Amino acid sequence: MNYLKKVVIVMFCVFCSLKLAAQTHPNIILTKANINVVKSGIGKYPLLKKSYQEVKERADFAITHPIIVPTPKDGGGGYTHEQHKRNYSNILDCGIAYQITGNQKYADYIKNILLVYAAHYKEWGLHPKRKSDDDSGRIFWQCLNDFVWQFYVIQGYDMAYNAISTKDRAIIEEQLFIPILKFITEEHYDVFNMIHNHGTWALAAVGMTGYVLHQPKYVEMALKGSNLDGKTGYFAQLDQLFSPDGYYSEGPYYQRYAMLPFVLFAKAINNYQPGLKIFDYRDKLLAKAINTSLQLTYTDKTFFPINDAIKDKTYESIELVYGLDIAYADIEPESFLLDIANRQGRVIVSDAGLKVAKAIAEGKTKPFKYVSQWIRDGASGQEGGLGILRYGKNEDQECLLLKAASQGMGHGHFDRLNILFYDNGTQIFEDYGSARFINIDTKGVGNYLPENNTWAKQTVAHNTLVVDEQSDFKGKVDVAQKYHPDLVYFKADSNLQVVSAKEDNAYADVKLLRTSALVKILGYTKPLLIDVFKATSKTEHQYDLPFWYAGQLVNSSFDIDAKKDDLKALGTDFGYQHLWFNAQNQLDDKGGFVSILNNKRFYTIHFITENPLQVKLVSVGANDPHMNLVDGKAFILSQPKAKNQTFISITEVHGGVDPVNETVNAAASSISGLKIITTNDEQTAFSFKFKDKVYQYMINYQNKNNYVVIK
Amino acid sequence: MNYLKKVVIVMFCVFCSLKLAAQTHPNIILTKANINVVKSGIGKYPLLKKSYQEVKERADFAITHPIIVPTPKDGGGGYTHEQHKRNYSNILDCGIAYQITGNQKYADYIKNILLVYAAHYKEWGLHPKRKSDDDSGRIFWQCLNDFVWQFYVIQGYDMAYNAISTKDRAIIEEQLFIPILKFITEEHYDVFNMIHNHGTWALAAVGMTGYVLHQPKYVEMALKGSNLDGKTGYFAQLDQLFSPDGYYSEGPYYQRYAMLPFVLFAKAINNYQPGLKIFDYRDKLLAKAINTSLQLTYTDKTFFPINDAIKDKTYESIELVYGLDIAYADIEPESFLLDIANRQGRVIVSDAGLKVAKAIAEGKTKPFKYVSQWIRDGASGQEGGLGILRYGKNEDQECLLLKAASQGMGHGHFDRLNILFYDNGTQIFEDYGSARFINIDTKGVGNYLPENNTWAKQTVAHNTLVVDEQSDFKGKVDVAQKYHPDLVYFKADSNLQVVSAKEDNAYADVKLLRTSALVKILGYTKPLLIDVFKATSKTEHQYDLPFWYAGQLVNSSFDIDAKKDDLKALGTDFGYQHLWFNAQNQLDDKGGFVSILNNKRFYTIHFITENPLQVKLVSVGANDPHMNLVDGKAFILSQPKAKNQTFISITEVHGGVDPVNETVNAAASSISGLKIITTNDEQTAFSFKFKDKVYQYMINYQNKNNYVVIK
Repeated sequence: MNYLKKVVIVMFCVFCSLKLAAQTHPNIILTKANINVVKSGIGKYPLLKKSYQEVKERADFAITHPIIVPTPKDGGGGYTHEQHKRNYSNILDCGIAYQITGNQKYADYIKNILLVYAAHYKEWGLHPKRKSDDDSGRIFWQCLNDFVWQFYVIQGYDMAYNAISTKDRAIIEEQLFIPILKFITEEHYDVFNMIHNHGTWALAAVGMTGYVLHQPKYVEMALKGSNLDGKTGYFAQLDQLFSPDGYYSEGPYYQRYAMLPFVLFAKAINNYQPGLKIFDYRDKLLAKAINTSLQLTYTDKTFFPINDAIKDKTYESIELVYGLDIAYADIEPESFLLDIANRQGRVIVSDAGLKVAKAIAEGKTKPFKYVSQWIRDGASGQEGGLGILRYGKNEDQECLLLKAASQGMGHGHFDRLNILFYDNGTQIFEDYGSARFINIDTKGVGNYLPENNTWAKQTVAHNTLVVDEQSDFKGKVDVAQKYHPDLVYFKADSNLQVVSAKEDNAYADVKLLRTSALVKILGYTKPLLIDVFKATSKTEHQYDLPFWYAGQLVNSSFDIDAKKDDLKALGTDFGYQHLWFNAQNQLDDKGGFVSILNNKRFYTIHFITENPLQVKLVSVGANDPHMNLVDGKAFILSQPKAKNQTFISITEVHGGVDPVNETVNAAASSISGLKIITTNDEQTAFSFKFKDKVYQYMINYQNKNNYVVIK
Repeated sequence: MNYLKKVVIVMFCVFCSLKLAAQTHPNIILTKANINVVKSGIGKYPLLKKSYQEVKERADFAITHPIIVPTPKDGGGGYTHEQHKRNYSNILDCGIAYQITGNQKYADYIKNILLVYAAHYKEWGLHPKRKSDDDSGRIFWQCLNDFVWQFYVIQGYDMAYNAISTKDRAIIEEQLFIPILKFITEEHYDVFNMIHNHGTWALAAVGMTGYVLHQPKYVEMALKGSNLDGKTGYFAQLDQLFSPDGYYSEGPYYQRYAMLPFVLFAKAINNYQPGLKIFDYRDKLLAKAINTSLQLTYTDKTFFPINDAIKDKTYESIELVYGLDIAYADIEPESFLLDIANRQGRVIVSDAGLKVAKAIAEGKTKPFKYVSQWIRDGASGQEGGLGILRYGKNEDQECLLLKAASQGMGHGHFDRLNILFYDNGTQIFEDYGSARFINIDTKGVGNYLPENNTWAKQTVAHNTLVVDEQSDFKGKVDVAQKYHPDLVYFKADSNLQVVSAKEDNAYADVKLLRTSALVKILGYTKPLLIDVFKATSKTEHQYDLPFWYAGQLVNSSFDIDAKKDDLKALGTDFGYQHLWFNAQNQLDDKGGFVSILNNKRFYTIHFITENPLQVKLVSVGANDPHMNLVDGKAFILSQPKAKNQTFISITEVHGGVDPVNETVNAAASSISGLKIITTNDEQTAFSFKFKDKVYQYMINYQNKNNYVVIK
């Protein structure tokens, strides 16, 4: 932290010695000096042209329809909510259209709509649908949306600035923007000074507005916090919310969301105060954060849906379009970023977007480089992290994520040592994400549903060990926030990729250690996923290890005798109350297998433990009176009573079906004879037969030089 | 029938007066005279080139790997089953590769593998996995697959014919093909003479083999049946299995399957006996059948999954690649067929494929014309049919199918007056299809599962009325086969498309009449689906109308209070035993609505009846001990006791969500105030409000000139 503190202090000195750059408009995403090259770029570079056409179509739609500024009334997804969102988008689109065409009508739209807002803003009190006064917006039900509104609107205003009369500007600024700045920094003093994504949006809105309105006081507050002491504000957030690897503690879904104010405010800082060298700050932290955001996706573009996440969110989202364009144009022009820009299918009509579209048109694109890596969590990089193992080209990549990160505050899930597994463009072992229908008013006002707490956050909703049918830290976020897992071992050789992490505090007297590996065996195209989950305790516990699988169960080593009627919930708390208990299978043996057909490919999971075990088949949906939950199916390896327990599993990707040609290939697994040789504090060793050859797999817990051996 | 009989008699005369064409090889899909143009076409036309490359890659793989002809042992999807399938594909691929390259090695592969088959065929008895002797193959567990094997192999043999020595040909023909011809026509006399798709494959294999081996006796049997009296055989099948509109009574899935032997044998007949003018037969029946197959798909390429169907089957399947190429090249070169060929992504490397690929390369493609139509069922077109209503361009088409066809024999479902509804590239009200994991050995040997009878065929598994919790015809196929629904009214104006059909025999004393319409209201982009289901009876019954919806329920006019624990099956028979009874809602009112979010778009179904009703929410899965069933969800409009009953529903397509941009649009329906004005034998009339305007909708059952009126 000492190093960081010094950097911060140096920065402040630089800042204090600078005056704000002369007031030119526009000067954020589009800058006055570059307008002509962007204009001519629109004619030349297809991606910029297409992106601009989309902007202009929306702008033309806006200016030919009545201005509607409704009195704030509805919650998320409701009519007034969506209308005010539409208005800020329109303002931004018209700002761009004005700069590119020079046509006054677009600037007039901005002037006119802002005059309407200015006329009414003061009479709007706190929003009638607010959850609490502390959290309330005036335009929206939560203040966060008000910050976002201002964040977009100020960009549009900056672009129309010179086309609005001094008199009108005075009205807009005095009746609308200054009151909003006060609303954010005074009435929402706490949120503005919070080290949290809501705070980021607040300060970016305030800082950018400060630049555009030439109000250095607000810029300073945005950078250094209300007290100007650097304990809060932009730099403090950059220091505390990101790890040195650019990981944001709330997880990828919120990282994506938070990226936009971080990156765009940085762009504004860079334009107005280039001397701050904001993009170099903390060893180019912003570039790392953008790159890490992209690395936190699978090849289907979706973010890993850990913690509270909307599962179909992809890097096509506007935040990462901004992020990527600025990363390429202003930080480091990596040609593999262009691949993502192509898949995003748009650029920001801006100085940065111009460079990206130009580079693509010049054929500079290279395939995006997904890498296997350990991404550190925590401001100092010492609070666990995420292990990502990948194998194969982007078109058909096998990918394993081990989540050994810190809690991630209120949006974190109790899923220490959870794994996600992907293959063939889709999730194989999946995460539920959050229980939320975002912006759908009729489902909990579009907000997190009660089942987000009772189900989605609970340990059993994840692919990780549950002890005694309770969640990690008994589901208490304040306790969980104090502890983090630790990396034990990481290796990413091409044929043997391993991540091993431990968690000692999730349960009072049980230590957890998980070692997951992608193991490529010679002569076989797809690596095996070999997973060893070890629980150690001095006392007896029930150990449940769920596998939340996508697809259809098509084979198993045991006869399935599913409940035909009178289906019961599996338990009463910690998410178990939401599980329908479809089938209980007491195995004669210590192991077995289950085969899944998913997206036309087979996956066979072989498993073994030290003691005969049960396999419970469950599905999501019990105790859900309003049918808020979506479907999900798991098999749970369950050990009713043991002190120490090792769950070993090998997942083989094999064969497939072709429904169009009605053929099937390699429906049976090639693995057999999975046997434990030993498992203790020193070592877990086991053997299995794969296509006529017997392999031994050993984890040497005490030997980092020889941690995993396969022979 | 008289006309048809005459045509058949004329045909036979033509046939009898002809000798088979001189023996040239090849003479089926590739013909000797055309080899050189096909060769040069491969260099010129991208789709032909790509198609050939795929064939050649497979052929090269085959010839560089050992020949494996295992003793038949496994059922569908098992090792020997798949290997023998692979072998016939290899033989065909090598035949093509030989013709195009002239390289003897491909012909040698065919010679060598057929000599191995010839050496073993006689020693193989009936297949050990056969279900019965009547049905048994020798190479496969069912004789059908043996017919298919011969069907493909004879094409490959024809192509390699001139490159195989007379001596080897004699061995192959005497030890393999003649025994197979006898096996089919003698040991499977009944199947060979059956009016059924198994019979089609049998006779096509026999007929084509007869041509290639110059055995006119077998050709005659194939055309006219074993007794040469025309009561069975190819012509009899063409007359009886297809309606005058080219609909095949078993439904689209089997129609697709049956198309291949029909079409390819026709091609062989046309080459060998052009005087038969087979493509003109029955008013160009084969062209109609191919076109009807395509019209029985939605824009996502899948066939309407009525009756026993594999749901992800598309027109990309090889049967329709053959069908389409021959339809274009040999019957009628409709430029919209090229659109489908493009989407199929391949052509048959053949005379016909050449023409298709050439036309595409010459830019002749036009978008495929999906049409709204009534497709008649029954040999004379008098046994009901399918009503298809479509609206919108292929990229976003609303489509309604009303199934009012005959039973379709053993693969038929008990789903009289069932509807399917599609929009936005996906199913909205869906059909379960069949309960089958085709070719997956571990799931019922890849065959139909027991739940296909107990669930998939039952009425309640469909979007149609169930009376007294029993299926149509109490689920008895022999009774159902005797009756068919009737068309009452069909109209396909662009803004008002209507299909109305009745079924008087499905239930002893209840008459069913359904009138479904796509109604385009001025100023709104998407038509409403207005559906009126009328049941008339002198006695009281329970009436259940299920809506099997895809997607997530996000809103309803009533509070949902789903069962939290102790989930029970809804009933005990006719499929009700497979339904989990999730929620029972007794409405205070006679109507209400349910909103569904599916593929990012909203669908609100408003409904009303004469009496207060219940809405039951159910999901598939009860009484399924081996977990053979896949997921499904429905709401059932349920009337516990009534004599006459009219269910009126209006489904509005509206708005949507954009998860990437986190916006939502028009989440609320614009329809309200749905009220019945009258419903009796003369008329059903009701009104509703749509965006501030009140509409009246009337069906005048007795007035065909004014059947449906909206004002």
